Amino acid sequence: MLRRLTILSALLLSACQTTAVADQPPKAPPPPPPVQTTKEVLDAAGPSFFKRIPDEDVLVIELKNGRKVAIQLASRFAPVHVANIRAFARGGWWDGATIYRVQEGFVVQWGRNEDGRKYPPGVTDKPPAEYELAMPQEQIVPLGYADAYSPISGFVDGWPVGYDPASGTAALAHCYASVGAGRDMHPDTGAGGELYAIIGHAPRRLDRNIASVGRVIDGFDAMTSLPRGTGDGLGMYTDKTMEVTIARARLAADLPASERPAYEAMDTNHGLFPAYLRARANSTNDFYRRAPGAVDLCGLPAMVRKVEAK
Amino acid sequence: MLRRLTILSALLLSACQTTAVADQPPKAPPPPPPVQTTKEVLDAAGPSFFKRIPDEDVLVIELKNGRKVAIQLASRFAPVHVANIRAFARGGWWDGATIYRVQEGFVVQWGRNEDGRKYPPGVTDKPPAEYELAMPQEQIVPLGYADAYSPISGFVDGWPVGYDPASGTAALAHCYASVGAGRDMHPDTGAGGELYAIIGHAPRRLDRNIASVGRVIDGFDAMTSLPRGTGDGLGMYTDKTMEVTIARARLAADLPASERPAYEAMDTNHGLFPAYLRARANSTNDFYRRAPGAVDLCGLPAMVRKVEAK
Repeated sequence: MLRRLTILSALLLSACQTTAVADQPPKAPPPPPPVQTTKEVLDAAGPSFFKRIPDEDVLVIELKNGRKVAIQLASRFAPVHVANIRAFARGGWWDGATIYRVQEGFVVQWGRNEDGRKYPPGVTDKPPAEYELAMPQEQIVPLGYADAYSPISGFVDGWPVGYDPASGTAALAHCYASVGAGRDMHPDTGAGGELYAIIGHAPRRLDRNIASVGRVIDGFDAMTSLPRGTGDGLGMYTDKTMEVTIARARLAADLPASERPAYEAMDTNHGLFPAYLRARANSTNDFYRRAPGAVDLCGLPAMVRKVEAK
Repeated sequence: MLRRLTILSALLLSACQTTAVADQPPKAPPPPPPVQTTKEVLDAAGPSFFKRIPDEDVLVIELKNGRKVAIQLASRFAPVHVANIRAFARGGWWDGATIYRVQEGFVVQWGRNEDGRKYPPGVTDKPPAEYELAMPQEQIVPLGYADAYSPISGFVDGWPVGYDPASGTAALAHCYASVGAGRDMHPDTGAGGELYAIIGHAPRRLDRNIASVGRVIDGFDAMTSLPRGTGDGLGMYTDKTMEVTIARARLAADLPASERPAYEAMDTNHGLFPAYLRARANSTNDFYRRAPGAVDLCGLPAMVRKVEAK
């Protein structure tokens, strides 16, 4: 998060000009609009470019070491898993559980790894395989740049997705900081009580193979900087004293107002979002003298920001 | 590295069959060959699929805490920078220097941050901006899947590259674990005495903007698991006691035989490399039931492996 805000700050330093909005319809086919800077697009969009994330969609994990990690839940894409996660949080499922797996370049994983404890009330034992979501292609705001994994990719409600026109389904992309529900070999396993977060190169082979349920939006370094494990070739901590204990995990909605964090996510349905994509792709500054010419599906900075609670 | 080897191990578990090699030329245009499993391709390629990395191209950084990090140098792509790095190593430049920057989701950086020390003999003060390399397109082994940043991308001597047909140049892709030479605002800065490694989502906007000089091939978790800094919004350690001291950094070629590690890199010019790409893109197993359908430029596992020195 820090870096993302920093990049925004750096962009504030770049040359800016006021945004001209045409007030007359053009008489001839208009030339392509000039590329605006990211700052110009953000200024033109104003506060409406970000939308408050509902407190019910934010899971706050408080580690025993005092660090907090906030996760935005993808309630539209994995509704049963997310309902489970809410029920797990409300039932105190993760309180006292641990981060027990940190695999270099892949995942951090936490929860209760088959300790036989009974699920709290409200948890659906075998949620459906919520790996993809049927929707018309028109609902995808196109990325506009190539993606190896999908002929069409883009954004739905702020989330990066790959779209499969053959089946008419969108799937959340596994990017850095994506959070999913661990499962066993069979898809009908994994209720959401064990979660993982991606700490390396986007493992897109997970897309459509597992339920992605959200993304870390704050405090991720409390997870990414943990020592890597070695057990089972899967990053398990064989030395149990390395496990990191979770003090409690609660929905932001259930925290006292004084402790409740507030976040906003970029509204990818906003009319200026395509201009934002174009600005990012063409951005240069004193350091970056060559524009990248593209943004990739997992590469957009500053999609979420922390705000003062209102 | 661990994960990469693990994935290979996991693939050994998947169903396998012996590789059929046609011994008669087909009489009609042949159908596309059946997709082999990764294991079948590796078996068919045999030991020739990996080539020993010259010891002169391996920089071993030994941290004071006992951990070692090995970096393969991209001598063809950044020859002057790599010559500098060899001279820095031989001059003891990094001995006693520190890792002083760890920016979440972006980079770890180390070296001597403008402490005024004189460069050792053999260091070119202002190396050219070795950001891209002219070569005919035929030298690129195509990835065969889309890349947001380049119309043509693929591999040169084991390295992932984007190719620009207009300028006829290839540029190393900034992937997870890529190593580059830090520089100031002006391209004519950064001799290679300060290096960074990527610890987050592939920041491809760096491609063609900075000299990529190699990649971490072993022990990366000694860097990725460091606490993140906060200074200057760039991950600098404001608390100097957090800095991690480098005991010494040497080329593998200069280490005593008993301490010299040995590595092999996948030969992307091997005749079976395209089959390997296709196998990865189409791989499934008991866990991954849907094939990803692609591999992205930064996503190939097991490109480098540690071996017994001969």
